[in-house]
Amino acid sequence: MCVFHSREDLALETVDGYGAYRRELVEAGLLIPMGVRGMYGRGEAFEHAIERFDALVTRAGATPRPEVMRFPPIFSRANYEKVGHIHNFPDLMGSLHTFTGSDGEHRDMLGRFERGEDWSRDLSASQAMMTPAICYPLYPTATGTLPPGGRRVDLQGYAFRHEPSDDPARMQVFRMHEFVRLGTPAEALEHRDTWLDKGRDVFASVGLEVDRVVANDPFFGRGGRVQKAIQREQALKYEFVIPICSTEKPTAIGSCNYHLEHFGEAFAISTHDGAVAHSACVGFGLERVALALFKTHGLKFESWPREVRDVLGIG
Amino acid sequence: MCVFHSREDLALETVDGYGAYRRELVEAGLLIPMGVRGMYGRGEAFEHAIERFDALVTRAGATPRPEVMRFPPIFSRANYEKVGHIHNFPDLMGSLHTFTGSDGEHRDMLGRFERGEDWSRDLSASQAMMTPAICYPLYPTATGTLPPGGRRVDLQGYAFRHEPSDDPARMQVFRMHEFVRLGTPAEALEHRDTWLDKGRDVFASVGLEVDRVVANDPFFGRGGRVQKAIQREQALKYEFVIPICSTEKPTAIGSCNYHLEHFGEAFAISTHDGAVAHSACVGFGLERVALALFKTHGLKFESWPREVRDVLGIG
Repeated sequence: MCVFHSREDLALETVDGYGAYRRELVEAGLLIPMGVRGMYGRGEAFEHAIERFDALVTRAGATPRPEVMRFPPIFSRANYEKVGHIHNFPDLMGSLHTFTGSDGEHRDMLGRFERGEDWSRDLSASQAMMTPAICYPLYPTATGTLPPGGRRVDLQGYAFRHEPSDDPARMQVFRMHEFVRLGTPAEALEHRDTWLDKGRDVFASVGLEVDRVVANDPFFGRGGRVQKAIQREQALKYEFVIPICSTEKPTAIGSCNYHLEHFGEAFAISTHDGAVAHSACVGFGLERVALALFKTHGLKFESWPREVRDVLGIG
Repeated sequence: MCVFHSREDLALETVDGYGAYRRELVEAGLLIPMGVRGMYGRGEAFEHAIERFDALVTRAGATPRPEVMRFPPIFSRANYEKVGHIHNFPDLMGSLHTFTGSDGEHRDMLGRFERGEDWSRDLSASQAMMTPAICYPLYPTATGTLPPGGRRVDLQGYAFRHEPSDDPARMQVFRMHEFVRLGTPAEALEHRDTWLDKGRDVFASVGLEVDRVVANDPFFGRGGRVQKAIQREQALKYEFVIPICSTEKPTAIGSCNYHLEHFGEAFAISTHDGAVAHSACVGFGLERVALALFKTHGLKFESWPREVRDVLGIG
């Protein structure tokens, strides 16, 4: 899964240039504030940049040809409970609750609502959770034995993470384009390593010179510190980083992740020869890439270098 | 807002042909079950049909030129509380809850989780709600005075409705493409009426012969019955319907809605001359359109009429 940025960054946000770039983006009509920190509508040019970069990434991932699947922004609570997210990232979760009561109970809830009291306690958990990483919904559908050579899957969709922030690059809901590999350890590692170069080249082709750094997911709490250290030590996660609002604290706009047997074990996925499947993924954070493009090349397409516009197909 | 199908349909589902078509779709790889009723991944061809129809609709709505905005699948709880959804459709809502506690409270929640108890009560309501209709997030951003001639906005995105069902056409999360008009009553009505013809023509161009019927939203409970009757009597909502799983109960694949001053009043939007703005929208249910196309023309593109594939740009 692809989680960008460590939790420690949150404390530093306000001292950085987030507010200034955010204001520019809003004034240019690229982002539309929605009244909640980290929640934005996307203006026409912002969306166009995302669509064009998304098409570029699709082409980059077309060989060897992957299966194409698209999952919605929610997935099954029962599967959520199998991936360890409640242990590692409880504060990022989005759990969907709804009203399942009677007419009378509805009147009671409306009473609380109208008196300005908390009405959310009248709701019950539904079977849906927000998707924290867009490859999570894939693994439960892959239960069973993989074909020889494993599988490659092209995914794109919305992920949700509850981390309200003024950093325009830390949205609560955003799109990722991922290429996932399921197979042997060697197949998974080869995928991760291939994309470390291929991803850097994709970014370079649109004028984004990224650094590749070993990183860790923002594991929760005291216990999480050990997991962060292990993840770094084993170099399981690499990020493509580039300055957006700050040169000292560059932003991750993509990542390459080797999950070991985490998902293979959770969802009983095995390789053709009966071993537990390993997996790896590369993820491109589409909103963050757009933010990096507008930061690097300017807020209007007219100011973007001709060669970048040609690569993206922006007229 | 665009809600399709009345609540009464739910009771009739199991007696109809939903299961058979659902099985065909899954076997053909068009839909990918996700372990929850009404929740599916989309296969490559299904997604391709949606993308191509979406592009067709974009062209149909390009004159007069609308603003283009894209909102994510969530919006602000404070704005949710202004639209009346909690009164009218509480059972369809999706309220996002998350964990905001300490390390110690996290251990308590994990204890409940591991004992198989309900851990959802340890969560708190966040500031986010699922978007029940994709034009809802727009109206709060339009607070203030409209320019002369009002506004036209092109929207596309995910909507969520909690209505678990075996009917493949009743997904819990699905995409809509909408064109919204904000302005005087005459401007709103003209928009609604223009799209009653234009929408039918768009559907006809891809071989979908729809009926246009006066409809009502699935208002909740006993009180809702009165509102349904009023909505029908005033003919505020029209649906484009076509048989998908049943000829007796055709499915709405689009709708044209006149909201009167509902959103103008809720979000203090006024026309250039100071009156409360009225609004109208046309909505195309993209997953339902794809289901209608595969039902009408066959489960493989090869069997679709040449002229339909040409209109959609499907090779």
